[in-house]
Parts: sequence; C-alpha cells; structure tokens
Amino acid sequence: MSVEKTMDKITILCKNRGFIFPGSDIYGGLANSWDYGPLGVEFKNNVKKAWWKKFVQESSYNVGLDSAILMNREVWVASGHVGGFSDPLMDCKECKARFRADKLVEDHMTANGAEVASADGWTNEQLKEYIESNNIVCPKCGKMNYTDIRKFNLMFKTFQGVTEDAKSEVFLRPETAQGIFVNFKAVQRTSRKKVPFGIAQIGKSFRNEITPGNFTFRTREFEQMELEFFCKPGTDLEWHKYWKDYCWKFLMDLNVKPENLRMRDHGEEELSFYSNATSDIEYLFPFGWGELWGIADRTDYDLNKHQEHSGQDLSYLDQATNEKYIPYVIEPSLGADRVTLAFLIEAYDEEELEDGDVRTVLHLHPALAPFKAAILPLSKKLSEKALDVYAELSKKFNIEFDETGSIGKRYRRQDEIGTPYCITIDFDTLEDGAVTIRNRDTMEQERIKISEVENYIQKSLEF
Amino acid sequence: MSVEKTMDKITILCKNRGFIFPGSDIYGGLANSWDYGPLGVEFKNNVKKAWWKKFVQESSYNVGLDSAILMNREVWVASGHVGGFSDPLMDCKECKARFRADKLVEDHMTANGAEVASADGWTNEQLKEYIESNNIVCPKCGKMNYTDIRKFNLMFKTFQGVTEDAKSEVFLRPETAQGIFVNFKAVQRTSRKKVPFGIAQIGKSFRNEITPGNFTFRTREFEQMELEFFCKPGTDLEWHKYWKDYCWKFLMDLNVKPENLRMRDHGEEELSFYSNATSDIEYLFPFGWGELWGIADRTDYDLNKHQEHSGQDLSYLDQATNEKYIPYVIEPSLGADRVTLAFLIEAYDEEELEDGDVRTVLHLHPALAPFKAAILPLSKKLSEKALDVYAELSKKFNIEFDETGSIGKRYRRQDEIGTPYCITIDFDTLEDGAVTIRNRDTMEQERIKISEVENYIQKSLEF
Repeated sequence: MSVEKTMDKITILCKNRGFIFPGSDIYGGLANSWDYGPLGVEFKNNVKKAWWKKFVQESSYNVGLDSAILMNREVWVASGHVGGFSDPLMDCKECKARFRADKLVEDHMTANGAEVASADGWTNEQLKEYIESNNIVCPKCGKMNYTDIRKFNLMFKTFQGVTEDAKSEVFLRPETAQGIFVNFKAVQRTSRKKVPFGIAQIGKSFRNEITPGNFTFRTREFEQMELEFFCKPGTDLEWHKYWKDYCWKFLMDLNVKPENLRMRDHGEEELSFYSNATSDIEYLFPFGWGELWGIADRTDYDLNKHQEHSGQDLSYLDQATNEKYIPYVIEPSLGADRVTLAFLIEAYDEEELEDGDVRTVLHLHPALAPFKAAILPLSKKLSEKALDVYAELSKKFNIEFDETGSIGKRYRRQDEIGTPYCITIDFDTLEDGAVTIRNRDTMEQERIKISEVENYIQKSLEF
Repeated sequence: MSVEKTMDKITILCKNRGFIFPGSDIYGGLANSWDYGPLGVEFKNNVKKAWWKKFVQESSYNVGLDSAILMNREVWVASGHVGGFSDPLMDCKECKARFRADKLVEDHMTANGAEVASADGWTNEQLKEYIESNNIVCPKCGKMNYTDIRKFNLMFKTFQGVTEDAKSEVFLRPETAQGIFVNFKAVQRTSRKKVPFGIAQIGKSFRNEITPGNFTFRTREFEQMELEFFCKPGTDLEWHKYWKDYCWKFLMDLNVKPENLRMRDHGEEELSFYSNATSDIEYLFPFGWGELWGIADRTDYDLNKHQEHSGQDLSYLDQATNEKYIPYVIEPSLGADRVTLAFLIEAYDEEELEDGDVRTVLHLHPALAPFKAAILPLSKKLSEKALDVYAELSKKFNIEFDETGSIGKRYRRQDEIGTPYCITIDFDTLEDGAVTIRNRDTMEQERIKISEVENYIQKSLEF
C-alpha cells in the first residue's frame, strides 16, 4: 500500500506521542526551535549511538572528540567565518519584506524546472543580475523595487566576561569541524595515530538562519555528527570514495530504502575553490530532496589556514618515509536532527489490517527504536510478574510498561512509536515461565522462555 | 600506599593522554575552556550513559527530555533569571582589580575557620557591611577603597534574527531545569505518566562566571544532568530523602569511596525562601570540598511562576482522587564535567610494584573506563589474529589495539588510562583459541577462551 507521508502527519505524530514538541511552547514558541520529548530523546540518542558505533567504535581509523562550543575568536577569523559566513539579504522597499537573494534565485530556478537549483558561491552582483534579468518580483507584494544586497553574518555573537567589547566577543560555533582542526595535533600526538586517521565529533552548532523551516530540517540550533579524516595528499580521492560508500551503507543498514536516497556529486562550477570533490547524499523528504550528508574533499585548506593564522606547525611527519606534509581532509558531515527526521519519515507507514482498521506504524530499525520492547500484562493480576520482567529487561534496554486498555489498543500504541516487540504476560506465564512475543512488522507471535528474551532482543539490535 | 593527588598531576595526565585539552589551545586558549580528547569523550559519555541508565532506563518513574538551549526570553523572565541571576561585582578603586564581593566574604570566612563559608543569598548591603566591619582589604593591592557593589547578570546574551533589539534578544540557558518545567504538561500528557514521576535531561548550560577555575570544576560552558521529580505536596520530604539516597548510591556503585563524600544538609539560613529542604553531595577534591550534586526540594515554586507568567494551566489532575494541584518538585542536579572529574581523581593512584617501579593507574569502574580492553599481540606475526579479535570485540565495546613496545610498557600505558583488561594474543592462541587476560587492579592473569571474552567483559560492566 502506498501511503502519502506529509510533514503534517509526521509533525502531529511527533507532538502527540512525545517525539518532538515545539520549543518554549507555553510562551508561544521561539522561531523554529524544537524540544525532543521522552521518545524523541531516546530515538535521537540511538541515532547518535549508531553513528558513533560505526564511525568511532568499530572503525580502527577513527577516534572521538568533544570540543567546546565557545572557542577563541581567532578560530573563526582563520576559518573564514568572521569574514565570509553570511547570507545575502535584500529588502523590498515597497512592503519592507526581507529576503535571502539566493533563495529567491533558487526558488525561481526550481519553478522553472532546473534539476539542481543552487546559487551557492554566487556574488552579490551575480544574484542581482539574475533577479533583474529574470524579473523576479517581491513574492509578498509583487513589486520590483529592492534594496541592494548586503551580507549578514550567520554566527551568533555574545560576550564573555564583564565588558562588551571586541576583545571579549565570542561566537557560538557554526560547525563542529573547526574544533577538530584546532585539536588535530594534540589528538594525533596523544592517540599516537598514524595518517590516515580520522577524528569524529557530535555536538551542537548554531546558525542565525534567516529562514529556518521544514520542521527539524533547518533550525538555528542543531546537532552535527562530523568526521574529519586526515590522509596523505594524492590519496584523497580514493578516501573520498571510501567514505561516500561507508556513509551510504550506514543509511542502508538502518533500513533507508535506496529509492529515497541519491548521491549527488557536485559539478565543477558548484565546488568550492579548494575542494577536489564534494558529494551530497540527499533524502527524498515530503517537501523534496534535501541534503543529509555532505562528503567533501577539503584538501589541506583548513589545516593550512590554521597553520598560517596560529603560527603553529600543523604538519605531519610520516616516520616510515620521513615525509612531512599537511594532510588532506575528507569531511563527511551529517546533521543529527536531519537524519533522525529522515529515519522517522522513512519508517512511517499506514497499513490496512485484516479487520479493515488502519494502523500507523514506524518500521524503525530496532537499534533506533525508542523502546526495544513493551511489557503488556494481560490482566492487572499479572502486574507483579510483569513488573519483574520489566525490571530485569530494563537493566539492559529501554523498555515500556503498559497495562491500560485492550491488548489490541496497546499493540496500536506500540506500533505507532516503533516498538519492535510486544511481550505479553498471561496466566500461563506463571506456570511455564514463557511469554508471547509479537513482532511489530510481521505482527506474528511466538512463545519463548523469559530467560531467552534478552538474547532475542539483543540479536535484533545488531546492524 | 597513600599518594598525593594534586590537580597538577591530574591536569597533566589529562593533557598527555588525551582526556582533556585546553580549549582553542593553538590560539592561546579561551579563558577556562576545555576540550575532551579521544579518551575524555569516551569517559564522559560513559558517565552520562551511567546516569541515564540509572535515572531514566532503570527507573520506572522517570522519562527523558532534550530541550533546546535557546528558549523564549519569557522563560527566563518567569524563572527570575533575567531579574536576579547575577553576581555581586566590586572594583578596587586603587588598582582597578575586579572581585566578586561574595567570594571575598567567603574566603574571609574560610580563612577564619568557618566550617561552612557561604554568603549565598546575601544582599549587597549585607556583603558591604561584612567587608567593612571585617576590614577585608583588596587582595591585590592591600588598599581598602572599593566601588559600590553592582549586580552582573550571568546569562550569555545574543540576538536571533537580523536585528539587534530587545525583541530579538535570547539567552544561552544557564540551566537545563527550565526546559523541563516548560515541557511538564506536554510530557505528562504524551507519556501518560502519573504523579509521582520525573523528567531527566542531559545538556549544555552556560554561565558567564567572573571567576571560572579549578580545571573542569567551574567553567562557563558546562554540561548538566538534571532530574525534576514531580510529586504530591506533602510527600516532598519523603521523596527528597529517596533521591538523596539514590544519588549517594549511584556514586558508591561507581567506586567513589564514602570517606571522600559528604552529604551536607542546608541549614534554615542557607535555604532559598521557597525550598523545604536542600542537600549537597560534596566531593573532596584536591582543592577542598566541592559541590557535586545539589538535591533541592523546590516545592511548587517553578511551576507556579510559569503558570502565572505564561497564563497556562500547569496543574495536575489526580484521576484517582479527583484532586487538582501544582506538583512539588525534587531536583537532583549534577554537573557532568564535575562528576567526571571526581571519578577521575578518585580513580587515580600511584602504586609501587614488586620491581620497585611505580605505576600510575586509574581504578575506574569498567563501565566508566574509556576502553573496556586492550588487545596486545605479543609479536607482529600475531597481528592478523589480534586484529580479528579486535574487530569482533569492537562490535560490542570500545577496544584499544596496541602492538608497539614491550608488553610491560603496554601494560603501564593501559593502566594509566584505566583499561580494565589487557588481552594478550600469543603463539599458543593460534593453537588453543585462548588468550591471557590481565586484570588492571590485581594485575593477575588468567587464560580464557576467545569465545568467552565478550561475556567476561560484559559482566564486569554491570553496576
């Protein structure tokens, strides 16, 4: 059955079942900010754990890092963010509405059937020229009377210490990557890793976006999962391919269907001047294709910038060959909120049952599901036994306990939040020490010993 | 053997072995900011996981939450942070040095033998009066010529959107607790929890402290692990005791020795006006007793404030008794960085060995250790077999692989980073499929089958 997955359905499910709430809701919210509820925090934590497992724990190449959000201002001067990390803004002189000039251009491209609508890297002049020659009028009032385009820096600025002057100015990091670059030497020295090796990090970043939106797809506060992989110059394209494949497999292994993904290699004109290759893994969201993972070959651009600006030697000495060089960097950068949203949409389904009812179900990979199982006593008289089983399994997994409503209603509730197994405790359980396990996806049931349940669940979590 | 644990030794170990680096180090740092290196991020993640396991997963009372750092400004008006979350600052007119007046008072109390040195909640007038009557001169120049005391708000302020006016002013949250209070109703409704129940959250908070210091003990950017436990008015003191015991047990179970902990109940004069009881669990750091965990009975203060300010009904209807009330709140609030530091100091030891050498060892609980085991092939010829074992175990645990240096040297290296088990692969391994496991604490060795290693490690992680 083909079901229409709309953002509305997803948002409502999230709000009603405690996945994701509007941020600061009792005060009318705060722009496009979101809070992860009891189910959402488990789900997103599982996504982060899955990434860490594959990109750090199981990868003999990579180690982890957790650098501070607030960094020395010079980091952002060196990286180019103070000078260049900005959106091109433009006001309509007639109705005072404010727009991102590049968005106006891209929307126009899309509306006119362009397959790739990107104005990335365009100058203000190029944008202005396109808008004028295509006669793109104000989307709000329909007039054609704009101010000049000016740059608006996307970094949130604050002051550290008791004075508000340039000296005490600090930024909320707009990406986690720079925290990795500035620690490159310290990590390499203390971990005794040899190139090629990578440093992985999960953490919050902040961008003062003009037009956040599409639920958790684009928010001002967001979480990133970034890997900076350091390799020998000349081997970079090979490693770029390695990580493209690795990232793709990660999504496949966690049940994303290939028809909802595409690998988009950037063309020459779209590439940053320092990049040897960049590919985006895009997911087909209800609102269209959206970037999940950017996998960029950034050459030695970042380490070079920091070496120049800090005056520190950031080169690497290959002790086997006695060569000294600045490593090239492959950067697979993934938005934790985005990929969590993609997993949710991918898992969402509405299925017609034999009795004609429709169930909403999340076919989440068990490793990502908020609860691994729900314990359902068939009668209140079985609560004690059920709570014993709950307590035992809770030492290993996040487990739900539900004793209210008919068993059918409880199944529907667990289906809707993606719980892979419903474990029913009945009166026979007291005699034979066995329970009935219902599979979320097949809805089939089997009877197994309580002592085997832990292993049964554990096995399902592997990926 | 009694070893002197100094902050210097701890800091140096952290820097040299990749636990914790100075933040933005290649640019000369940023105040007292710190980055967790490859070992530190694993260690701190394990601390957070341990807390989540005990306070969410295994507790049938509690659920989790992950609310945004940036919240609607009105949240902080209601909570009192906009009006009252400030330090009393004072300058020396002679030498221009700047001080926290309460710190001057507390330092003076300590120097004069006070057991509890606290000026919490004192007014500017009280502070001024104490400083003058005790003739506390400027610690820097020795003069007695201060400016008036003024309030300095500790919240970091920034602007969201394209204009910098009061309307777009937002703060970096100074605590995670308020994110819980504003979501109280949404969580209760969607999780269908009945009072008593709790909401737990781990996340970054920010305070523009005048005098951060003592390594990661007090930093401007820090991570909290907070529980807000909602209970019926009148049952609060009982629950306060429950959570005091629960928190204490958490530390015990993870190998903190009771002689290095104390439970300090606040006296009447130290209590906030709305609090029925507050207790701090303090740890004996090398620099003295420091607060780890504040466990406060906050009554209905916070929910009441938000109800008044937001105009939303935040009361709870007890469906069994049909009573309607604003729940009372017990708040056990723990600093993730602080408790991580305490675990590290607690685990640190220098031990004299039989051959007269001294080994540095971290007796971390295996659940907290960055690596659960290290795979050490006795010869390069055994690399292949060793890598097989490494790959297999890495699917389950974070595992180290080390094939460089003498076996004794490798043991020292693993002792120093707290790896509970060293697994040696020797030539017999190829024949009998067994390995030698060395215990970090006892240094005893035993031979076990490779197929049993996973279970052996898994068991040690329980707590």
